[in-house]
Amino acid sequence: MRRITVSAPGKVILHGEHAVVYGKKALAASLNLRTYMSVTKRGDNLINLHFPDIELKLSLPCGIDVSGNNTKNGDVTSPIPASDDVIETLKKLSGLDVDASQSQTLAVVSFLYVYTEISKASKSPLPGIDVGVQSELPIGAGLGSSASYSVCLAAALLQLGSHINESKFSSNTETDTLYQSSWTHNETELIKKWSYISEKIMHGNPSGVDNSVTTFGGAIEFRKGNITNLSQMPEIKILLVNTKVPRSTKTLVSNVRTKYDKELIDINQGLLRTLGVSHSRLDRVCEVTAALGLHAKLTGAGGGGCAFCLITPGTPKADVKEVMSQLRAEGFECWKTNICGQGVIRHWTHSEHYNIPPGFLPE
Amino acid sequence: MRRITVSAPGKVILHGEHAVVYGKKALAASLNLRTYMSVTKRGDNLINLHFPDIELKLSLPCGIDVSGNNTKNGDVTSPIPASDDVIETLKKLSGLDVDASQSQTLAVVSFLYVYTEISKASKSPLPGIDVGVQSELPIGAGLGSSASYSVCLAAALLQLGSHINESKFSSNTETDTLYQSSWTHNETELIKKWSYISEKIMHGNPSGVDNSVTTFGGAIEFRKGNITNLSQMPEIKILLVNTKVPRSTKTLVSNVRTKYDKELIDINQGLLRTLGVSHSRLDRVCEVTAALGLHAKLTGAGGGGCAFCLITPGTPKADVKEVMSQLRAEGFECWKTNICGQGVIRHWTHSEHYNIPPGFLPE
Repeated sequence: MRRITVSAPGKVILHGEHAVVYGKKALAASLNLRTYMSVTKRGDNLINLHFPDIELKLSLPCGIDVSGNNTKNGDVTSPIPASDDVIETLKKLSGLDVDASQSQTLAVVSFLYVYTEISKASKSPLPGIDVGVQSELPIGAGLGSSASYSVCLAAALLQLGSHINESKFSSNTETDTLYQSSWTHNETELIKKWSYISEKIMHGNPSGVDNSVTTFGGAIEFRKGNITNLSQMPEIKILLVNTKVPRSTKTLVSNVRTKYDKELIDINQGLLRTLGVSHSRLDRVCEVTAALGLHAKLTGAGGGGCAFCLITPGTPKADVKEVMSQLRAEGFECWKTNICGQGVIRHWTHSEHYNIPPGFLPE
Repeated sequence: MRRITVSAPGKVILHGEHAVVYGKKALAASLNLRTYMSVTKRGDNLINLHFPDIELKLSLPCGIDVSGNNTKNGDVTSPIPASDDVIETLKKLSGLDVDASQSQTLAVVSFLYVYTEISKASKSPLPGIDVGVQSELPIGAGLGSSASYSVCLAAALLQLGSHINESKFSSNTETDTLYQSSWTHNETELIKKWSYISEKIMHGNPSGVDNSVTTFGGAIEFRKGNITNLSQMPEIKILLVNTKVPRSTKTLVSNVRTKYDKELIDINQGLLRTLGVSHSRLDRVCEVTAALGLHAKLTGAGGGGCAFCLITPGTPKADVKEVMSQLRAEGFECWKTNICGQGVIRHWTHSEHYNIPPGFLPE
C-alpha cells in the first residue's frame, strides 16, 4: 500500500458551550464537513507538506529529532506531550518563513512532533512522504478544523508506522467508488491519544472534546473533563451558518465570568425574557434603569405585574430620583423601599390610647 | 387592652420565580410595604369589617359557625383547612352582595373561617369586634398583599383569643411614637400556621412561601416545598415598579413548560445572548431562521463565529432553500449538513490506484 488516505469530521457544540466552564454538561457532535489527508511513501528522505487551505507548501528532511527520549521506551501507547522548549525548537527547525501565519506554524510543528515521536516508537523510522491535506471546514471558525487535522495526522502516521492495522474494509453503496474501513476500539483510542498530543501543540490546554468527537464521530457528552460517547444518536440535519465575525474565546469566557459573578439580576431577567415571561412594559423598566447603570428584573410570574431594581449603597440618590421620575412620567407606579426587614409585629403607643402607625386610619 | 394593632410585610420574589417549578431554588424577601390590621373589642356581638382598600364595609353577627368540629378537639396548634363545602357555605352566609368582587369575598370568607375556628379553640368565644385593615401594598400585583392580610388576621385573632402573649415591647427610637413587640418562636410559628389556613382559602394550594416570609420577615430560600430562613440578611434598598399590566400566573407557568419541553435551542440561544456572548450578526441569523419557524443558536464561544439551525424531518425543503438564499444574500456562509455521523475513517478504492474521495485533490 503506497498511499494512505484518511478523513475525520469537524465538530459542532450543540449545547452548553459556556455552561461547561461552570461544571455543567456540554453536548458536542461530529459534523459531516471533513478534513482529508493523504500520505504517500516516497523513495527518498523528504517530507513534502502541501496544505492548500492554509497556503502551505514545504519540503523538509525527515531526520529531524529534537525531542530527546520523549515517548517512553518507544511505547506508542504512552505518547508524551511536547514541552514548550521542544515546540520552540521545532518552530525554528521547521523551515517556515519568519512571516508564516500561526495556522501554518502550528500545522507544521504538530506534524513534525507527531511524525518524530511515532517514528521513534516504530520498528524502523518512518519513511519520506508526500502529505496532502484538504478540508471542507472553514479554519478558525470553531468547527474543529484543527482537531480533524490532528486526528487525520495521528491516524495516517500510526498506520504508516504499522501501529494500527490496515484493517478490513467494507463497500459503501451510496458513494460507489469509495470504500471505508474501521479500526478496533483500541486502535481508535490510540488515534485519539495521539491526536490530543497534536491538539495540545495547537491549543495549549484543550478540553479533549474536539479530538474525541472527531475520532469517534456521533455525539458526546462532556462534563468536568469526563467524556461519554452517546451511542445510537441518529444523523441529524442542520444548517450551519458562518457569520465570519472573528472573536476571541478567551475574552468571551472572561466576560461571562464577570457577568456570572456580578450581574445576577440582569442574567435572571434575561433568562425570564428568554422563557417568554417578560413583557414590553417590563423590558421598558429595565431599559430606563439600565440607562443609569441600575439593574432591574421582573418579580413573580412575569408577563406584567412588578419589577424591582436594586439600589446599592453606592447608587447616587439623584440617579434613583431621576429613574423614579422617568418611570412615573411613563405611567409606572413606583416605591423606593426596603426588603429583608421585620416580619409580623404588634404595634403599641406609650399611652395605649391610640396605637395605629402614621398614615393608618381605619375607624 | 381594648385594641390590638398588628402589621405584616409584603414580599418580593428576588430570584427563581419560574425555576422553582422545576425543583430549583427560589429566593423571597419581605418588603417594607405593610398591611396593618386593628381589632377593637365591642360590647355587643357584632363583627364590623372595614377594609377601605377593597371598598368593603360589612357588619355580621359573630355567632356564625358552619364548620363543624374542624379544629381538632379545640387544639389551636392543629388548625384544619376549610373544605370546599365550608367555603361555599361561608360565601352564602357572609352577607356580601351577589356582585361582590373576588377580593371582597375571599377576604370575608378567610376572616370568618379563621375567626370561627380560633373562637372554638379558645376558652370563651371571641367577642364582637371592629376590624380595620389598611395596606401600603397594591392588591393583586404579586407583592403578597393576601399573605400579609392573612398573617395580620392570624396574629390579631390569636392575640384576641389569648393564644399568644401580649408579650414584652421595646421602644423604637426612630419612629418615636411607635412601639413594636415580638413573639416567641413558637408563637410566631402558630401565626404562620393559621395564616396558611387563610392563604389556602385565598389561593387554593399556595406554596407557603408568601405567608412564611411575611410572618418571619427577612429572606427565605424555598426549594421543593422546604423553606429555610436566611438569617442575618441586611436590609437592602430596592426600587419597586408596578407595570400595572395584568397577567395570569397559570398561563405563564404553562407557557414556560411548553418552551422548556420543546424549544431548547431557542432557550439556550436566549441564555447565551443574556450572557453577552451573542452578536448582532448571530441574532440576525436567528431572526432569519425564526421567520420561517426554524430554530437557531450560536455554537462555540459566540461573539461571532458560527450558528446552527436544526432541520427536522418535517421541515419543508423550500423553507431551507429560502433561508439559505436569504442568509447568503446577507453575506453569511452556509452549509446544509449532517451531524452525529462517522468519526475518523480510512478511504479506499476498488483498484487501490487512487483512493481520494470526490473533490479531494491535494498536490
